[in-house]
Amino acid sequence: MAEAEIPTLHDIITARPHVYRYLKPTPLYRYFGLSELIGANVWVKHENHLPGGAYKVRGGVNLVAHLSQKERDSGLFTASTGNHGQSVAFAARVHGLRATIAVPEGANPGKVAAMRSLGAKVVFHGPNYESALEWVVGAAAAQGGRLVDATEDRLIHGVGTYGLEIIEDLPEVDAIIVPVGAGSGACATAIVAKTINPRIELIAVQSAQAPAMQQSWAAGRPVNVVAHTVADGLALSVPFENTRRILRKYLDDFVLVDDGAIEAAVVLLLEHTHNLAEGAAAAPLAAALKLRDRLAGRNLVLVMTGGNLSMDQLRRLLAPQREQSAHAAG
Amino acid sequence: MAEAEIPTLHDIITARPHVYRYLKPTPLYRYFGLSELIGANVWVKHENHLPGGAYKVRGGVNLVAHLSQKERDSGLFTASTGNHGQSVAFAARVHGLRATIAVPEGANPGKVAAMRSLGAKVVFHGPNYESALEWVVGAAAAQGGRLVDATEDRLIHGVGTYGLEIIEDLPEVDAIIVPVGAGSGACATAIVAKTINPRIELIAVQSAQAPAMQQSWAAGRPVNVVAHTVADGLALSVPFENTRRILRKYLDDFVLVDDGAIEAAVVLLLEHTHNLAEGAAAAPLAAALKLRDRLAGRNLVLVMTGGNLSMDQLRRLLAPQREQSAHAAG
Repeated sequence: MAEAEIPTLHDIITARPHVYRYLKPTPLYRYFGLSELIGANVWVKHENHLPGGAYKVRGGVNLVAHLSQKERDSGLFTASTGNHGQSVAFAARVHGLRATIAVPEGANPGKVAAMRSLGAKVVFHGPNYESALEWVVGAAAAQGGRLVDATEDRLIHGVGTYGLEIIEDLPEVDAIIVPVGAGSGACATAIVAKTINPRIELIAVQSAQAPAMQQSWAAGRPVNVVAHTVADGLALSVPFENTRRILRKYLDDFVLVDDGAIEAAVVLLLEHTHNLAEGAAAAPLAAALKLRDRLAGRNLVLVMTGGNLSMDQLRRLLAPQREQSAHAAG
Repeated sequence: MAEAEIPTLHDIITARPHVYRYLKPTPLYRYFGLSELIGANVWVKHENHLPGGAYKVRGGVNLVAHLSQKERDSGLFTASTGNHGQSVAFAARVHGLRATIAVPEGANPGKVAAMRSLGAKVVFHGPNYESALEWVVGAAAAQGGRLVDATEDRLIHGVGTYGLEIIEDLPEVDAIIVPVGAGSGACATAIVAKTINPRIELIAVQSAQAPAMQQSWAAGRPVNVVAHTVADGLALSVPFENTRRILRKYLDDFVLVDDGAIEAAVVLLLEHTHNLAEGAAAAPLAAALKLRDRLAGRNLVLVMTGGNLSMDQLRRLLAPQREQSAHAAG
């Protein structure tokens, strides 16, 4: 019974028309500099090229396409560290719905500005994702709104379309590395890849400074942590149950990388791809550098999940003394 | 007779299958922050999302698709400050040909590395584009190779496909701002836009520190200049004749912006779009800021022609004291 509830490849294929009504497939490019660095054939899946600069938007448009009229009329409520909120705000806008997004105080200002410019009401609440979530659950209940969970199935179906694009563009892929925040992207990619070819290795990565999903995956039960990562897209303390059980079933490995290695990877990606990656989106390169030996000579895809790095973070990373310390940490 | 030789919309439509065999259309995104800044409805055409990070690649694949077997066998020779060379290298690779690219000493190292990783032979010659060109003309003649001029018609036909994408995605566009190096992109966009709707305003931009094409356009005859711009994609001293006459026929305006304004625009684009623009690709935003009054309330497209900014340039731009001086200059 629990098995039957896990999203399938069929669900993801079914989401495609809803996703491609508003979005275009993203490119998968091979980078020779990164390939030399890792000692593998390295491709990057450019989810940072989507509107809002992150893969999440694929999920929002699919979810909203399936809402009842009553849900549509009630408006959407969700909590987010940023990209999920942008996804809900984008989907609400293109479908003409209202959206209320709760974010932690100190949320990435670019992500907040993007949500507001899409017409969403943004409410700051508490120091972290969990406190913003608590507030929005109450607000949705009080106002009779549709609460959107960051890992609900319709979102996983939508974001799975990028996994399918990877395998269509590169059928000979050997390994895919995906960062995990709430886990919807990693789950969706794992479902697609393992269903089509179980030999594709699926590797997830989190920051060692916020390992809630990784520790839960390793332990086989939910484990809470104190999150203090620089990668806002990875800053979760309490694991999500829906994605935890899917990752448990499908992942080959789930590694941790230090924030310092993530920051060094942001700089390397800028240098080799001329694309700005946010912390979460650079974690796969940090993981690949850690797993160099295992990946040698293989066809490897790194998912660049989003590009919403703040200017403050970028300035700090590119300051000469900072870069040295980040490399040392990596 | 001279009229008949100018590329047409039909030529550009004919190039599409050759371009889309290897490349996907790029996104056109609306940015609310940039719209507020300009006081217009601002979209960015993301040519920086193409392989090699620049629009030029559309031209190379079209040119090579039309070569005779003799030309294919002889190998390709061209001179470039970077992106045109990457385009020829990419096209040569996907079609299995040899390519020799002459670049000025001190050429953008990322662009040079990309050409080499695509299998091209890169030769450094002289202090500027013109000296590299002089060398490669001799080398092509000596070795019986096919010399590729940076503005030949097949290249214009190929790059025109992005202009067509703009008008298909946003038929209500009022104005398009395009940077000019050799001028192929601006020519192609102007041909497409003016043929489809003569009321679309076509504005070209160059650096005031390298205004060869702008001065030639204004004077109605070729004018040489001393080029010393920070935007390597715009660093030409001698105007191209083929593109000069097309620009003369089609452009509504051709403005100059200072290097300081271009650098400030690179930072603004990073902040508002999270995309890295090279100097040439930021010039349209600098021009839009200069033309704010004229563009008020209109549907404006800025072409982000490429993203190949070097890390050294980026570091310098993001250093706090530098940013202030760039803003002051802008």
